[in-house]
Amino acid sequence: MVAVSKPRGTRDFTPEEMERRRAVEKKMREIFESYGYREIATPTMEHMELFTMKSGEGVIEETYSFHDKSGRMLALRPELTAPTMRFYMEKMRMSPKPLKVYYFGNCFRYDRPQKGRYREFWQMGCELIGTDKPEAIAELIATAYHVLEGTGLKNVKLRVGDLELLRSFIKKLGVENSEIMRLIDKSDYDGVSELIGEKEGAEEFMEFLNCRELDSLKKFFGGEAGRIESVLEWLSSFGVPYTLDTSIARGLDYYRGIVFEIDAPSLGAEKQLCGGGEYTLLPLLGGDETATAGFALGFDRIVLALEKEGYEFPLPEELVYIHPIGDEMRKEAVLLATELRMKGLKVEMDLMRRSMQKSLQYADRIRAKKAVIMGPDEWEKGMVVVKDMKTGEQKEVRKEEIGGYL
Amino acid sequence: MVAVSKPRGTRDFTPEEMERRRAVEKKMREIFESYGYREIATPTMEHMELFTMKSGEGVIEETYSFHDKSGRMLALRPELTAPTMRFYMEKMRMSPKPLKVYYFGNCFRYDRPQKGRYREFWQMGCELIGTDKPEAIAELIATAYHVLEGTGLKNVKLRVGDLELLRSFIKKLGVENSEIMRLIDKSDYDGVSELIGEKEGAEEFMEFLNCRELDSLKKFFGGEAGRIESVLEWLSSFGVPYTLDTSIARGLDYYRGIVFEIDAPSLGAEKQLCGGGEYTLLPLLGGDETATAGFALGFDRIVLALEKEGYEFPLPEELVYIHPIGDEMRKEAVLLATELRMKGLKVEMDLMRRSMQKSLQYADRIRAKKAVIMGPDEWEKGMVVVKDMKTGEQKEVRKEEIGGYL
Repeated sequence: MVAVSKPRGTRDFTPEEMERRRAVEKKMREIFESYGYREIATPTMEHMELFTMKSGEGVIEETYSFHDKSGRMLALRPELTAPTMRFYMEKMRMSPKPLKVYYFGNCFRYDRPQKGRYREFWQMGCELIGTDKPEAIAELIATAYHVLEGTGLKNVKLRVGDLELLRSFIKKLGVENSEIMRLIDKSDYDGVSELIGEKEGAEEFMEFLNCRELDSLKKFFGGEAGRIESVLEWLSSFGVPYTLDTSIARGLDYYRGIVFEIDAPSLGAEKQLCGGGEYTLLPLLGGDETATAGFALGFDRIVLALEKEGYEFPLPEELVYIHPIGDEMRKEAVLLATELRMKGLKVEMDLMRRSMQKSLQYADRIRAKKAVIMGPDEWEKGMVVVKDMKTGEQKEVRKEEIGGYL
Repeated sequence: MVAVSKPRGTRDFTPEEMERRRAVEKKMREIFESYGYREIATPTMEHMELFTMKSGEGVIEETYSFHDKSGRMLALRPELTAPTMRFYMEKMRMSPKPLKVYYFGNCFRYDRPQKGRYREFWQMGCELIGTDKPEAIAELIATAYHVLEGTGLKNVKLRVGDLELLRSFIKKLGVENSEIMRLIDKSDYDGVSELIGEKEGAEEFMEFLNCRELDSLKKFFGGEAGRIESVLEWLSSFGVPYTLDTSIARGLDYYRGIVFEIDAPSLGAEKQLCGGGEYTLLPLLGGDETATAGFALGFDRIVLALEKEGYEFPLPEELVYIHPIGDEMRKEAVLLATELRMKGLKVEMDLMRRSMQKSLQYADRIRAKKAVIMGPDEWEKGMVVVKDMKTGEQKEVRKEEIGGYL
């Protein structure tokens, strides 16, 4: 019986899972860095105000919180954009613009655990601060797309929208903004229809929401879709395939202008891997109206999507196993293990003083590729036996040559 | 004015700091893996019982805690050995032995922040499960030493002790164990003297506590120091320099047998980089008496010690900057940037439509090594200009050859 279990909605990761996760993380970092993004990190906990300021008081309910010694309410971060902006305000304001930073961190959500949704989950994401040129926003979207493509994912779908257009339409309709945005965010089009009823422009609005082509979008605006048209053109230059999606509402009020989402259709209901766009947050933190945009990628879902696609994760480096025969060879085994480790090889040796049979069974179970068997007779002749653990083939190798041979 | 600051005792890390930290982390991982350790990860929060079980109720006071929806008390992990053992009990019990796992994670401590002590800090460490052979314990200690050496640290001191010997001495003295261990742990030798007073064996005990040579230790035990003697011999085979230290008490009751600490003298009062040894924890979690040993390295202090030693951290990869002259070259710049990024280069381009002068100033401030200047006239001739940002030297390069040239 296990006396204490892990908390509900959290996960442990086995060595095999961590190898996969680190391999994916590494590729994602490489792409972020190729786009000139540099990593930053912020604390796991923040003052709760940081998140209520951005997302409203409702966020408290979904956030793990506790009190500091001083009595202030702290929160386990539910996301990393607000912390990054806080860090920017405290220490990076004077950095040359545009400033490009990325992060990789765990976030927390206090809700009912379900498949692909955990109470602790990982996000990799970035913020682009100081430019709102269309090619800059297109580059940001291209970064997200190429990071996902760089992991090895084959099937991802990018959708790009423009909240300014959506909001200007809603304003013309004269309905309450947050209610209709909530329905649009949930893709509840029947609900939208019901809400706007027979209002003037209602039919046109539903048509607008269904726009998936730039040409049809342009018709609403006298042949010019403005900013999004330009961003999409640049996106083509970056070699990124996209679909226009006028119905992207994003969850949060702080988004402005261009927004985008990337899905892995293989994941079903929890298919969204990435969400982002332009936003305004710095003024809430006491800063000025610097242009800001960014996105966050759901790391756990990316790993899940790769597994669903049958992606072959890179194999970890080969492991060499050393078995000394008899106590007299044990010290020589330590010396050889140390020498091979210094050369950068992954080496395990018998640490249980097992019989050869049991020792090699262990080597097999920990998936060693080669076993070096050190017998006193061979050693005297300056040799060791190297066994290929897969084929069973054995070969005598000179002890000085073993490093090169392996 | 910054409206919200980071919580007291926590830190933000700039890109420069993260580059250093990731470089150190990478080297540490490589050494762990060369010794056959494989990474695992556990949740940031655990049920509080896991830690009180190991360290007593006193730990609650120093631990960040909060309540789950179900009303159970959760804690931000103050350390990673208990979570690793919990994970072992839940999912890794059937793994072949010895089992070698390492972790890299943040831990939390609810105390007064001071230099080198933060409320959120990082630990890398490992557990060796299933063997207590002296060469296995020696290999564990060698792993700790070589991980530290592998980071580039020049000045680290390893001390090895044996709690069985210390405890057997204390038992003979007939004093209360926890009180004297606390004093020894603080190196309060006057306090120890006062506590044991004129008891029989008091003088001999003080002599024992001051033992720093194996030969003088052996005298206390009729010429044989037993287990520690054997471990130290193996440690020499692993090529690891050490000092015997009979006075290592470690803080916690759960340690057994061989214990060790590694210091960076350059850090002064907060000099301890590593602590570890053999321990018993599994029975508390409902498991059987499997041999367990491990250690934890203070990651933040390692980075600090490297900085104190004037270590030259590896430089990040070189950054290439692209400046298109005029709007007509901007699309070509996007294509070139994309091409170079695909080749694995780190590339930034002008995203502000700046004048050449301002653009190159920016390139300089973000420490680009080379700037590619794309002028329409050169482009028509199939050329671009590459400027070395350090020397100012400029060179015309054929556009097809630019990838190879950079």
